Amino acid sequence: MKITHILLLEVVHAPGNLAKVLAVVGDAGVPVQALQSLDRKQNRTRWELTVEMEENLVDALCAKIDELPIATVIGKSDRIMRRHEGGKIEVNSRSAIDTLQILRDVYTPGVAHVCLAIEKDPALARKYTSLAHTVAIVTNGTAILGLGDIGPVAGLPVMEGKAALFQIFAGVSGIPILLETKDADEIVRVVKAIAPSFGAIQLEDIAAPECFEIENQLRAQLDIPVLHDDQHGTAVVVIAALINAARITGVNLEECVIGQIGLGAAGLGIAQLLMRFGVHQILGADLSSDAQARLKDIGGIPAELDFVMENADVVISTTGVKGLIKPEMVRKGQIIFALSNPDPEIEPALALERGARFAADGRNINNVLAFPGLFRGILDSGAPKFTDSMLLAGAKSIADSAPEGELIPSPLDHEAHRRVAKAVEQAANEKR
Amino acid sequence: MKITHILLLEVVHAPGNLAKVLAVVGDAGVPVQALQSLDRKQNRTRWELTVEMEENLVDALCAKIDELPIATVIGKSDRIMRRHEGGKIEVNSRSAIDTLQILRDVYTPGVAHVCLAIEKDPALARKYTSLAHTVAIVTNGTAILGLGDIGPVAGLPVMEGKAALFQIFAGVSGIPILLETKDADEIVRVVKAIAPSFGAIQLEDIAAPECFEIENQLRAQLDIPVLHDDQHGTAVVVIAALINAARITGVNLEECVIGQIGLGAAGLGIAQLLMRFGVHQILGADLSSDAQARLKDIGGIPAELDFVMENADVVISTTGVKGLIKPEMVRKGQIIFALSNPDPEIEPALALERGARFAADGRNINNVLAFPGLFRGILDSGAPKFTDSMLLAGAKSIADSAPEGELIPSPLDHEAHRRVAKAVEQAANEKR
Repeated sequence: MKITHILLLEVVHAPGNLAKVLAVVGDAGVPVQALQSLDRKQNRTRWELTVEMEENLVDALCAKIDELPIATVIGKSDRIMRRHEGGKIEVNSRSAIDTLQILRDVYTPGVAHVCLAIEKDPALARKYTSLAHTVAIVTNGTAILGLGDIGPVAGLPVMEGKAALFQIFAGVSGIPILLETKDADEIVRVVKAIAPSFGAIQLEDIAAPECFEIENQLRAQLDIPVLHDDQHGTAVVVIAALINAARITGVNLEECVIGQIGLGAAGLGIAQLLMRFGVHQILGADLSSDAQARLKDIGGIPAELDFVMENADVVISTTGVKGLIKPEMVRKGQIIFALSNPDPEIEPALALERGARFAADGRNINNVLAFPGLFRGILDSGAPKFTDSMLLAGAKSIADSAPEGELIPSPLDHEAHRRVAKAVEQAANEKR
Repeated sequence: MKITHILLLEVVHAPGNLAKVLAVVGDAGVPVQALQSLDRKQNRTRWELTVEMEENLVDALCAKIDELPIATVIGKSDRIMRRHEGGKIEVNSRSAIDTLQILRDVYTPGVAHVCLAIEKDPALARKYTSLAHTVAIVTNGTAILGLGDIGPVAGLPVMEGKAALFQIFAGVSGIPILLETKDADEIVRVVKAIAPSFGAIQLEDIAAPECFEIENQLRAQLDIPVLHDDQHGTAVVVIAALINAARITGVNLEECVIGQIGLGAAGLGIAQLLMRFGVHQILGADLSSDAQARLKDIGGIPAELDFVMENADVVISTTGVKGLIKPEMVRKGQIIFALSNPDPEIEPALALERGARFAADGRNINNVLAFPGLFRGILDSGAPKFTDSMLLAGAKSIADSAPEGELIPSPLDHEAHRRVAKAVEQAANEKR
C-alpha cells in the first residue's frame, strides 16, 4: 500500500534546479502531494517534498534524486510522527476546578446530589453526565485503513484521529476501545458489558464478515445507537457523491442499473443504502459466495464482474484491488466510482478516455464528512437506533452542502457537518 | 447520609436579622458550610445558604426559617446540578485540525505511517498514542461514595469528577467505564478484554469483598498498573495524615499499637500499607469473619472493638457507622482518626475532651491528593505494577507537602500533586 513520505531535500538555489528534481520524481511515476521550502542556507534551499508511494520504492527514488549534482536527500521528515507525539487526544474537565467550593460541588460531597437524582430518575443521566456526547470507537484492528489486520494497538492512531475529528466537527467525545480478539461473540459480549459507559457505539475497522454479525447482534441487544462506520459512514458519503455525480450528468439514479464490484463492509453498506434511496436494480460481483448471499438477502442480484460491467449504468467498486477494472471493460456513458484507496480499480482519467460519462476515485470521497454529524444528530435526538432514513438524510445533506460542480464539500467545512447533524436529528424526530 | 443543600433565602435587610436566621439553623443542629449574598431587592437581601444535612430534615428546617417574620425560603439552589449540566468531561483533540495537510497527517493517509511504525515496534504506542496518559476509571456502582449500591450510571458523576481531577492535577486522561454486573469474574474478564485501550486501570467504588478478588486477579493477569482507589488511594492519604499527626504529637508510629475499626476496602488498604510503613502491631475489629481473616493474612490481629480501644495507641476507624466509638471508650493519650464520612465514629472535639492526644475526622483527609499523582508517576515510569514502596513514597510526599501544623496540604495544591507523581516515579525507578 502507498503511504505518505516526506523527503527533506537540499537543492542548489538556481533557476531550473527544482524542475530537475521534480522531473526525477515524475519519471518515477510518483505525483507530488506537497512541496514546501523550509529554509535557505548560503546557496542551497531546503525543501520538504511530500509524496505518496510504496514504502519499498522510496530508497530507489532518493538514490535517483541524489544522482543529480544539484540535489541531496538529507533525510525524511518526521512531521507526521511529530504530530502524533503524546497521542492526539486527551480527556479534559469542561470547567476549571480552582476553588474548594467548586471542588466540593463537582466532587464529594456535592456530587452525591447528582448521583441521587440520577438514581431516582435514570433519564437525568443524559442531562447531568457526559453520556449524551460520548461515543465508543470500538475496533479489534482486523481491517485498519487499507493496512489490514495489524491489531488494535497499531490501529489506535486511526481511532484517535476519529476521536479528534468527532470533537472538532461535532462536539462528540470519542473513546477508543481496543479489543484483542477476533471472536464475534466475545466482541458482542464485551461491548454489551461496557455499553452503559457510552451514549452510542461506533464500530470501526473490523473485518468482514464478522463486522456484520457483530453489528446486527449489538443493534438487537443494546438500547443505544450502534453503527459500523466502514459500512454505513462510507455509504453515506458515497451516496452523497453519487447524488451530485447524477446531478452533474443529468442521470436519474433511481432508474439506473447499479453495478457493485466488491461486497465487503463498504460495498454491502452502499448497496443497502442505495436500495433505501430508491434504486431498483443492483448487480453485485464478489468472489465470496457468502458475500453474494448477503447481497441477495437485501434484494440485489449477484453476478460476474464482466456481466456487471456490461450491464451497469453506474459502477461502484470497493475491492481494494488496484487496476481490477480493465479499460476495455468500460462501457460508453457509464458513471464509474472506483473507490479503493490508495489505488483505484481504474484511474478516472483512463475511464473517461474509454467513454465513461463521469469517473471518480476514492481520494476525494472522504468519510470524515459523515460520522461526526451522524452521531451528533442521533445523540441530540435521543433515538435508540440508526435507521436508513437517518443515513439518507445525512447523505442528502452532504450532497446539498457541496459547492457547485463538486461531488462533496470539504471535510473541513464545519457548516456541512452541522447540517448533517441537523438532518439526522430531524429524520430521527420525524420517525417517532 | 448527609448531602449538600443550598437554600435560597430572602431576609429583610436590617441589623440582627441574619443572626436570627442562623440561630434557627444552629438550633436545628446544622452547621453552616457557606453563606453568600446574591442580590438586594428593595429592603430584602437574597442569600445562598449551604448546609450539609439529611435530606428528610431539610423541609423541617425550611419551615422553621419560614416561621420567622423577617425571612422566607424562596427555593433551593440548583448550583450543583447546574455545574453538572452536559457532564463534566469531554475528549478533545490535542491540536487544531484546520488545514487539509494537518487532516492528512493525523488521519488518512498520513496516520498509516504511525500505525505501521507501531505494528513493527509495539513499544512505540507509548510515544505516539495517548495510551501513556490514559487511565480507565472502572466501577460497577456497588459502593458509590457513602451512598452504597446505587448502580454505575448513578455513580457516573463521581467517575467524571475523578476524570476531571486527573487531568487538572496530573495531565491524565481518565475514562469512566461503567459495568452493570456484580460478578467478580465477569468484571475481570471485561476489564481484561478492554485493557489494551488504557495505560492503567483504576478500580473505583466497587464494594468489598469483591473488590479484593477483582484487584488481585487483574494485577495478576494484566501487564499494566491496576489500583483500587478506595483501598490504596485512601490508604496513601490517611498515612500521610498519620505521619503528620505523629510529627505534631511527637509519637513514633512504628512503635505504636495501631487499632483499626472497620476492615472493608479502606480499612484493609490502610492496614496493608501501615505494615509496609514499619508498624509492627495492628489490632483490627470487624463484624465480618472474612474481613478478620483477611487482616490475619497480612499479619494483623483480629480483635473485639473494646479490646482495640483499650489497647491501641492510634485508632483508625472506617466503618461508616456514626458514633460507633463511645466517649467512654477513649483512652487517655490516644491518637484517633475517625474517618467515616460524612459522620465520624466519634466527633474529634468529643474525643479530645475525653483525653485523646489528637483527634481528626475524614472531612479534611481528602483522597483527591493521592490518585492523580499516583497514576501520573507510575505512567511516567513505565512500571507495570504498583508496589507498596511507590504508595509509601506518595504518602510521604503528601505528608511533606502539608503546611506546618496541618495534616495534609490543600487538595488544590498543584505542586503537592506534582511531588506525589515525582516520588512515585522515583520509587518505581529505584525498584528496577
